[in-house]
Amino acid sequence: MPDDKEAQAWFELGDMPVEEFRTALHRVADWAADYREGIEDLKISPNVAPGEIAARLPEAPPDVAVPFKDIFRDFQKIILPGIVHWGHPAFLGYFGSTTTAPGILGEMLVAALNVSAMTWRTSPAATELETLVLDWLRQMLGLSRDFTGVVYDTASVAVLHALAAARENLGLDARALGLCGRPEVPALRVYASDQAHSSVEKAVITLGIGERNVRRVSSDATYRIGISALRSAIEADLRDGLLPMAVVATVGTTSTTSVDPVEEIAALCHEYRLWLHVDAAYGGAMALLPEGRHLMNGVEAADSIVVNPHKWLFVPLDFSALYVRRPELLRATFSLVPEYLRGDAEQAECNYMDYGIQLGRRFRALKVWMVIRSFGSRGLATRIREHIRLASLFAFWLDADPQFEVLAPVTMAVVCFRIAPHTAGSTRVADEELNGLNRRLVEAVNRTGEAYLTHTTLNGHVAMRLAVGNVLTTARHLTRVYDLIRREAAHLVAAVGASY
Amino acid sequence: MPDDKEAQAWFELGDMPVEEFRTALHRVADWAADYREGIEDLKISPNVAPGEIAARLPEAPPDVAVPFKDIFRDFQKIILPGIVHWGHPAFLGYFGSTTTAPGILGEMLVAALNVSAMTWRTSPAATELETLVLDWLRQMLGLSRDFTGVVYDTASVAVLHALAAARENLGLDARALGLCGRPEVPALRVYASDQAHSSVEKAVITLGIGERNVRRVSSDATYRIGISALRSAIEADLRDGLLPMAVVATVGTTSTTSVDPVEEIAALCHEYRLWLHVDAAYGGAMALLPEGRHLMNGVEAADSIVVNPHKWLFVPLDFSALYVRRPELLRATFSLVPEYLRGDAEQAECNYMDYGIQLGRRFRALKVWMVIRSFGSRGLATRIREHIRLASLFAFWLDADPQFEVLAPVTMAVVCFRIAPHTAGSTRVADEELNGLNRRLVEAVNRTGEAYLTHTTLNGHVAMRLAVGNVLTTARHLTRVYDLIRREAAHLVAAVGASY
Repeated sequence: MPDDKEAQAWFELGDMPVEEFRTALHRVADWAADYREGIEDLKISPNVAPGEIAARLPEAPPDVAVPFKDIFRDFQKIILPGIVHWGHPAFLGYFGSTTTAPGILGEMLVAALNVSAMTWRTSPAATELETLVLDWLRQMLGLSRDFTGVVYDTASVAVLHALAAARENLGLDARALGLCGRPEVPALRVYASDQAHSSVEKAVITLGIGERNVRRVSSDATYRIGISALRSAIEADLRDGLLPMAVVATVGTTSTTSVDPVEEIAALCHEYRLWLHVDAAYGGAMALLPEGRHLMNGVEAADSIVVNPHKWLFVPLDFSALYVRRPELLRATFSLVPEYLRGDAEQAECNYMDYGIQLGRRFRALKVWMVIRSFGSRGLATRIREHIRLASLFAFWLDADPQFEVLAPVTMAVVCFRIAPHTAGSTRVADEELNGLNRRLVEAVNRTGEAYLTHTTLNGHVAMRLAVGNVLTTARHLTRVYDLIRREAAHLVAAVGASY
Repeated sequence: MPDDKEAQAWFELGDMPVEEFRTALHRVADWAADYREGIEDLKISPNVAPGEIAARLPEAPPDVAVPFKDIFRDFQKIILPGIVHWGHPAFLGYFGSTTTAPGILGEMLVAALNVSAMTWRTSPAATELETLVLDWLRQMLGLSRDFTGVVYDTASVAVLHALAAARENLGLDARALGLCGRPEVPALRVYASDQAHSSVEKAVITLGIGERNVRRVSSDATYRIGISALRSAIEADLRDGLLPMAVVATVGTTSTTSVDPVEEIAALCHEYRLWLHVDAAYGGAMALLPEGRHLMNGVEAADSIVVNPHKWLFVPLDFSALYVRRPELLRATFSLVPEYLRGDAEQAECNYMDYGIQLGRRFRALKVWMVIRSFGSRGLATRIREHIRLASLFAFWLDADPQFEVLAPVTMAVVCFRIAPHTAGSTRVADEELNGLNRRLVEAVNRTGEAYLTHTTLNGHVAMRLAVGNVLTTARHLTRVYDLIRREAAHLVAAVGASY
């Protein structure tokens, strides 16, 4: 490494000199390997107060160049202590972490190339690999050739595009004329269960349809949408002169991974001519298993399906795949082709910028290609199966322990549960108290830094939520997490024992 | 490297073994350094036909794991030959490439961490660094503290959010009620010059406002919006009972980098109470120069401003910064806070997921922090200044050459020009023929693989477009590109000479 003065001289113009770059790359390479190797020994979540990290950094941007070694030192000393280590095998929050070695290597190559996959011409291999991995994924999901994939960054953006296509499909010429200043356009309605992801609201708000036009239909005891309630909602809207547009069904809801009865919903959508969007962002991965594919029954009848390889297919953020039956609807909604790109678009090639809002598009396909090849579709399936086994094992332990209740069926790799200790007289503690206790228990567990859980609310019950999704997670980790939960629970229950 | 059988055994469960990962990381590190070192010797753009790359790859996903060395070999043998080398110093298309060594190193670290910056809690350092670099950038742009930044992936998504906030700001309760089924809501109108980016249409289409409600106002001879034409358009709409909502002004248009008279537009927006969005995605970088900051005059009065560090601030794809005066409007439009994240959002911390559509958010701030520190704000300014100098130099050569015409003022680092050879009798060739000639010239230049240009159309004239933006580009490269253009032009003109 050069001294500061040299570095500044180099940095007058041009890039970091390539030999310094090479040294830095190897340094980061070693760090990344060390980080992955030693991640189990790290405290998962930092105990920092808001503003604490920022306070260690200068408020004003630096005037002059700083050598890489100083930046890297600050990264390790200041940034890293404020990071939640999502890659830790006992990080079991949200949908787990999808960090994998091949994914990291893929991202490195993507960054080095830094091409924009807006049109075929801006990098033919980027577009063609995108088409290819989308088709590989389609095959792995068991979807027919009737579906064409498009990549977006997140499932929220994917559902936005799906519902934009649904809106265009109404024949109102929404693209050209919009929804405003048109007294003839009734309120459009979108249906989803009370367990569906909040991205449905974000999409509907964005599209000018209005949050109140999302009709959240009650789910049943296993958190699946009630078909008769759905039918009634549609019928009521029709009577009121509203225009039912789309149903969002979920295969693997965020709270409990419940699966809506897609076949029945599809029949209803067919009957009422509604767009069917299936949110399989998480649950789609189940289709890689012969024994899990039945959860996708009915999905083949959907108009659009989203599956996120960055949720449970071991691909780093971000990569969300939207499959549509009629890609021409996305094109009809979004293709504009500015003049300076006209030369590209006049060709017969596939230009993905025409299928969505975003113009600048990272070369996301490369990491997916590397992950699928590195594990093989069978290797991916084995890992998904193992995660389900681990979640079931954990639920089995809870079932056998009288102080815990499993609050939802374990369909995939998520367990929702709560602690519900008995009082001396064997009567149950009031729900309100239990809610507080379970919230505090999640916090206590996370504070140890040895595990990371999230929570959710099911029928008014606060549930602890554990999601297995990391390729590094094994039964050994879950045993420790279970012991940790019991230990922390004992402290909490002892502390409040007097009130029971 | 292990043999295939071993690799498959390892790949039954878990991740790539850490020692193999380490070896692979170093291999990729060396490749990335070699790639950057030797990029000048590469053919910029491949001569491949659509489908040619995909044809070399298997149609079905692999069943079993493949060792990294085989994947990496295929990357080099199959993928790389289909890549456009955006990082090549003679790649002068679009807005040039922003690949830099610190940016690549930043992306590596981001991939290794793979945290989601959806809430403060999901990685405090990710959120706080995001706030910090947005503020650093604000200071570098000379914007007052009245502006708060939010990061999105692209400027197209940023303008979508800006106009969603503008829509919310109308007091129609668009979030809750939407625009449809509301006879009282008139058509909303958005104004932009005929030179503004097509992302305005994409945003307006998405928001349910309708493409025809974008009023494209004619620009003047220097491609700046005509103020009186803008006023007339607003007045006409008011007379027609339409509801003017927002004006999009551009500092650095995509075709010519022209700059709208933002001060005058701001006065008009104030007068008519319209939202002012400034698209400085490219041109914002000029504000880093004392001598360039005047181009941002009036921007301080905007309601929202977008600047893309991935366009001309040497940050790899993707990073788009939206500055808003009232971030609470974005929150009011998009915040939902699903139950399973409630624990996070109840805190007083900044949760960026509340400011937009996207929930999963990459830790984008890290690479920006590394780029700003590696070059320093002065180093960034020096490079931007050098790019302007290079573009001016190129335009100077063209001006001195009677066969070329510079078609727009060179305000930033983009030159629009055309070849317009004289016939024997010194009469000009017809415009239609010139258009064909200039299109073919761009294609001929790009086909050599020694340079990469794009084209645009200005007042019906096809223009060749050269954009300097890469830290590796020097005068030496431009000299060669100029010679190449003349050489290819001579061939083309000779070939069609008979017709002149």
